[in-house]
Amino acid sequence: MAVYTEVTDDDLSAFLARYDAGSLVAYKGIAEGVENTNYLVQTTAGRFILTLYEKRVAPTDLPFFLGLMEHVAERGVSCPRPVHARDGTVLSQLAGRSAAMVTFLDGFSVRKPRADHCLKLGRALAQFHLAAADFELKRFNALGETGWRPLFKKIEDRADDIVPGLQALIGAELDGLDANWPRGLPGGIIHADLFPDNVFFLDDRLSGLIDFYFACNDAFAYDIAICLNAWCFEPDYAFNLTKGRALLEGYDSIRTLEPAERQAMPILARGAAVRFLLTRSYDWLNRPPNALVTPHNPFDYVRRLRFHQSIRSIAAYGLGDAA
Amino acid sequence: MAVYTEVTDDDLSAFLARYDAGSLVAYKGIAEGVENTNYLVQTTAGRFILTLYEKRVAPTDLPFFLGLMEHVAERGVSCPRPVHARDGTVLSQLAGRSAAMVTFLDGFSVRKPRADHCLKLGRALAQFHLAAADFELKRFNALGETGWRPLFKKIEDRADDIVPGLQALIGAELDGLDANWPRGLPGGIIHADLFPDNVFFLDDRLSGLIDFYFACNDAFAYDIAICLNAWCFEPDYAFNLTKGRALLEGYDSIRTLEPAERQAMPILARGAAVRFLLTRSYDWLNRPPNALVTPHNPFDYVRRLRFHQSIRSIAAYGLGDAA
Repeated sequence: MAVYTEVTDDDLSAFLARYDAGSLVAYKGIAEGVENTNYLVQTTAGRFILTLYEKRVAPTDLPFFLGLMEHVAERGVSCPRPVHARDGTVLSQLAGRSAAMVTFLDGFSVRKPRADHCLKLGRALAQFHLAAADFELKRFNALGETGWRPLFKKIEDRADDIVPGLQALIGAELDGLDANWPRGLPGGIIHADLFPDNVFFLDDRLSGLIDFYFACNDAFAYDIAICLNAWCFEPDYAFNLTKGRALLEGYDSIRTLEPAERQAMPILARGAAVRFLLTRSYDWLNRPPNALVTPHNPFDYVRRLRFHQSIRSIAAYGLGDAA
Repeated sequence: MAVYTEVTDDDLSAFLARYDAGSLVAYKGIAEGVENTNYLVQTTAGRFILTLYEKRVAPTDLPFFLGLMEHVAERGVSCPRPVHARDGTVLSQLAGRSAAMVTFLDGFSVRKPRADHCLKLGRALAQFHLAAADFELKRFNALGETGWRPLFKKIEDRADDIVPGLQALIGAELDGLDANWPRGLPGGIIHADLFPDNVFFLDDRLSGLIDFYFACNDAFAYDIAICLNAWCFEPDYAFNLTKGRALLEGYDSIRTLEPAERQAMPILARGAAVRFLLTRSYDWLNRPPNALVTPHNPFDYVRRLRFHQSIRSIAAYGLGDAA
């Protein structure tokens, strides 16, 4: 969300000289992505996004992220595509950081997604899952079900500072998730952070997916559960069944949901709510004073979690129980 | 330097609908300008910079700034040009802020200006002064010589926290400036903040000037003195005579410097150093803890001031005393 690392014109020109990507015309630091520094780079050959990876991204994960983007782009997913230098590499050093340049994606995220956006999102998510199926690298989901209790330990003592009762709520929920978390669901690489911010539309067409820096191996249906949380609740926390149905039907039209996935959807949605409740609580409690960027309010995910706790079947999200 | 105000896709599309400027293709918040929120907006018709004016800019000054940009652009100065809505206006409201859209300028600022950059800067500065001469609006320079002592009062007590002796140094310098500040020099509208950040180059051509939000009425030669401070010192605080000469000769080749202006240059340069020393000291003492952006170190201008105090004639900046 900020330009943490400044890149000089000389350094950028030298960087570009390693590519067949034209010469520098203009560049601007942009407020995109939470963890990295990004520049929009205009050259005589086109527009690119230059990313400098800041400390929170593990350098060992970069071949996974960049390889994944290239892999799915080659299989028809619209997403930024890493640009290769003349020596074939996609990753190099710039201003003391690991850096990569990707193609610019037209379009912009929608603040208030409608049902037709959710339909297109569902389709694109399934296409992404299928396209990534034969990608050779793997990445453990450190923010998956096994990671939630360790994260809870870090915030447990202060959770009630956010909202009274939060400690007990999460504690009880984690007990239930540990006991009932589904195993053996169809899985592969998931995006794991496909919020409206990370999906671009242009002229009502979904023009692309961005920000693959949480991608990892997990259950496909868990990725859908994240999207149900992120796309289908109204500002008053009501679940919008029309949007839920659109998302699920869109997905199902490309990759048919198995009965076990349908059955697991309520608990997956509870898990997804807990995952964001935990990280947002952590960020909330550890926010620097006077920070320019206010962290997301964790309470949004308390309300989502309560909805998921109240329902028993995928029908409540808009899709029939059986295929 | 940050995106203070978020603009939604719906609001931006509605804003663009008032212009003949194409429809929205992409937009990114950019880290440009210290005081305002800026977006790079790509439409089907081209690229624009959208500025939302934050609280530190007085709304009553906006017609001056936007009118000035348009006025000098029409007279051949390369700078962003305000885009008129179909109703003829250049200023409107967006996301609760005054907002204007200007044309995008190719090029980028150079971190390490060379003498040829200074030559082109000098020419462009003179062209700007001449182009603005018949602009009908005026704006008082609140950060001009009469503004320095009130500003000093605000930091006087804590000045020595920055560097021991700073209070006495500035106090004595202000006494000298009050006694010797030149009156009646040729003047008009000056840029007043033409640092390397605000000058774009492309293929060694000066492609444009930006950020007119300090522009005001004052002596032309004072604007040159600001540039001597901002462009012609090396990282070790040595004054680079070659760059100084290039800047002054570049300026003089377009608008001949009068003998009184040449004679006044050392004191104008001292005044310019004090002006930035004062505002940077103020920002330094009032910086928020944990701010993402570290304010400029005021000490850079102590060193510049000491150089100017040590010389007696414009010859020390690279130009002869007489025309």
